[in-house]
Amino acid sequence: MIKNKTEQAKQITKKSKDLRKWYQDVILKAELADYAPVKGCMVIRPYGYALWEKIQAFLDTLIKAHGVQNAYFPLFIPESFLNREKEHVAGFAPQTAIVTEAGGEKLKEKLVIRPTSETVMYEMYKKWVRSWRDLPIMINQWNNVVRWEKRTYLFLRTSEFLWQEGHCAHATYEESLETVMWALQTYKKVYNELLSLYGIAGVKSESEKFAGAAKTFSFEILMPDGRALQGGTSHDLGQNFSRAFHWTVQNKDRRNLYPWQNSWGLSTRSIGGLVMAGGDDNGLVLPPQIAPIQVIIIPIFKTESQDKVLGFAEKVKESLQNFHVEVDLREGETAGFKFNKWELKGVPLRVEIGEQEIKAGAATLVRRDNFVKEKVNLAELSSRVHKILEIMQKEIFERHQKFTEEHTHLIDSYLEFQDIMKKERGFLRAFWCEKSECEDKIKEETRATARCLELDAKEETGKCIYCGKDAKHRWLFAQAY
Amino acid sequence: MIKNKTEQAKQITKKSKDLRKWYQDVILKAELADYAPVKGCMVIRPYGYALWEKIQAFLDTLIKAHGVQNAYFPLFIPESFLNREKEHVAGFAPQTAIVTEAGGEKLKEKLVIRPTSETVMYEMYKKWVRSWRDLPIMINQWNNVVRWEKRTYLFLRTSEFLWQEGHCAHATYEESLETVMWALQTYKKVYNELLSLYGIAGVKSESEKFAGAAKTFSFEILMPDGRALQGGTSHDLGQNFSRAFHWTVQNKDRRNLYPWQNSWGLSTRSIGGLVMAGGDDNGLVLPPQIAPIQVIIIPIFKTESQDKVLGFAEKVKESLQNFHVEVDLREGETAGFKFNKWELKGVPLRVEIGEQEIKAGAATLVRRDNFVKEKVNLAELSSRVHKILEIMQKEIFERHQKFTEEHTHLIDSYLEFQDIMKKERGFLRAFWCEKSECEDKIKEETRATARCLELDAKEETGKCIYCGKDAKHRWLFAQAY
Repeated sequence: MIKNKTEQAKQITKKSKDLRKWYQDVILKAELADYAPVKGCMVIRPYGYALWEKIQAFLDTLIKAHGVQNAYFPLFIPESFLNREKEHVAGFAPQTAIVTEAGGEKLKEKLVIRPTSETVMYEMYKKWVRSWRDLPIMINQWNNVVRWEKRTYLFLRTSEFLWQEGHCAHATYEESLETVMWALQTYKKVYNELLSLYGIAGVKSESEKFAGAAKTFSFEILMPDGRALQGGTSHDLGQNFSRAFHWTVQNKDRRNLYPWQNSWGLSTRSIGGLVMAGGDDNGLVLPPQIAPIQVIIIPIFKTESQDKVLGFAEKVKESLQNFHVEVDLREGETAGFKFNKWELKGVPLRVEIGEQEIKAGAATLVRRDNFVKEKVNLAELSSRVHKILEIMQKEIFERHQKFTEEHTHLIDSYLEFQDIMKKERGFLRAFWCEKSECEDKIKEETRATARCLELDAKEETGKCIYCGKDAKHRWLFAQAY
Repeated sequence: MIKNKTEQAKQITKKSKDLRKWYQDVILKAELADYAPVKGCMVIRPYGYALWEKIQAFLDTLIKAHGVQNAYFPLFIPESFLNREKEHVAGFAPQTAIVTEAGGEKLKEKLVIRPTSETVMYEMYKKWVRSWRDLPIMINQWNNVVRWEKRTYLFLRTSEFLWQEGHCAHATYEESLETVMWALQTYKKVYNELLSLYGIAGVKSESEKFAGAAKTFSFEILMPDGRALQGGTSHDLGQNFSRAFHWTVQNKDRRNLYPWQNSWGLSTRSIGGLVMAGGDDNGLVLPPQIAPIQVIIIPIFKTESQDKVLGFAEKVKESLQNFHVEVDLREGETAGFKFNKWELKGVPLRVEIGEQEIKAGAATLVRRDNFVKEKVNLAELSSRVHKILEIMQKEIFERHQKFTEEHTHLIDSYLEFQDIMKKERGFLRAFWCEKSECEDKIKEETRATARCLELDAKEETGKCIYCGKDAKHRWLFAQAY
């Protein structure tokens, strides 16, 4: 049963060689997830689910601090509900899964498995909220949704996925927009502070906005292959849904108003971004804040020194109780095999404990992100580990920011645009006239789409990269995941 | 807009008059839940969902401390999977909801929405675990399941409900049984310590066990109408599923073994039990540990004293930061209306703040469960509130224990059995020969079923209450919810 280093190393494709294959290998071998028996679906295994629990805890705290309350709405949406908002149904109907039989009978009205919950939630809001006193209503739910896919791309594209969907309604447009922007900034926080990922926030073009929204804002993250991942979206729904649902509320002045609404979601897709953006040929690299195991202690011993080393390892573990720490006591595996196993799983810090360490009253630390090694006295171990984890969290973010900036280009000629999209891709800042014909052509010819107009983009004078007509803004283009 | 006390009080049926109507009124008016647009389904509103979040936090901590890890398995189960364990499919098939269309096409194989996840989980366990080294595998998931119902009984019977389902597999039967009993004791803890509900744990009869289990254990709780609610179940699955799935694992001795499995679940039904067992004519009574708001401060003022009273209320709130505390600042409602509103919502402790209290540098406290009133100096407020909440948690449990014991009867004649079941019902301890014919007849004639054989039941010599033949145990009978 003893496996050696080479055997383990062989198990994953090199990241530099084939990103897609590496990504799949890492997720399967690090036991983050697996393919489910039903096509298009996945199983999130405990190590992967622990990442989701960390994201939930971080984000849920921010959501509640903002006064949004959690609730639960049904999985089933009557087909007629989905039809009420025209753009909404057009956007989602082709991807729905439909229940036609239940309890041994054919159903009179088909039930759609929620692809998102606007319609079923707003039907209830309408029933509950009739007076301005009960506005704003701010509700979030953590649940599963279904948008049918035939091929699974683990975490990034699955028929069923987990997410949170926040749905607020306000008396004024300004208040609603404030919530839209708060949600967007909150997602940025999740990525920057928890997942150590840099990204760019902005507003979507007409063609890329959410089905039924007035405006969609998103947070875009650059992946190692120069493609962009949409990390979370926040939708200004205007009064589109309140009007479609004939939901009015009596205002202070006793006049009726249609509430201004917004919805915003972040999903298990974020884990896909975390895995793909980080990591190297040896596997995952998890930022310390999100790592389910932050420190792995590996005892190295011969039979005669076993008791002594294991005793010392236990002592080291006790001194690191402030962290998520584990000792690898598994039998039948060499130290080298264990090093590889935990590197594959992306544990930020490895602590090696052997006879030398015992003699020195110290532990050898090895960083997962850059393999820098140092020996630390037991007395200083906890504070040094704290410091290193803090530095790693920051440096992983900075590396991703640097990578993104190095792959962000100011482009003024379509030839250059095409050239970059053929080679390294990346974020391309280019003038665009905002007409869908140009957007379609650009996509057809280069695979790039307008990802967003950056939040702080200034109005400038320029010419559309494609048609040469007047353009006011440089949009952020990239090929999307 | 000003409503008075009478108007509010009228909104709910008296508990003593009509329990079922009272239960429905309380859940709707206290905004715990609402009926969903789809028949048989419900919406869990923020105040109700906060109860579920507390149950989750309490139970999840215990689950993790036992070494069980959370994960997520798909909503969809191929129809053929459900068919693999004969009793399992026979038990669940009549209640399933089925997806036949997805992504605009008719599906080749119908997909069942999980009524429980044994089959889809064990297919994966079989793939992941091939060696004894990887046993036990102990996984839990928090999710939604669907068992079709035509009529909704809020929280107690809904087509979709939320729960956790734990699924462990072990190398030996003894280890598996240990987990089964651990889960049962853990559910008892949730009810006793968090929900302040007394109950009885035991093993189910053959006819009442889980479809596919070797044995089912449950925790039974007596409701005010003398009917029993099954509060959680833990199933010893034996090797039924590992055999049905042809899942073998290589043991230390290199022989193959079929793992011994168990599964256990606790659902949002527990909230139904909490609501029904507690509460009075004024509405909910929440034990302090589960209450989303533990202390509600109600400022009482005339226009001229408003600023002073609100300022003092804020000060009182600050001194109670160790608790879930809120000040009711809502305009357009009288103090009496507010008293009723928060009584309806079951907030354990009301703090009244008026000019008298300011003068005395004190606050008036009113307990929700017995309306006992006391004035407490600001300096002692926090420690006194702590003490009162502790006492309430204990006394609510003791009252329910006393109620249960007073309605538990040792019965030795079938006439008496029938008589009690016609009148007050309750738990009936009676000898039963363990034959299903007697059980069926008893149910038909009295509506009572064998709820369980209590864990500590001694073997005795007796005669079956129905047929008079030899019986070894007194079983616990009751009419089930």
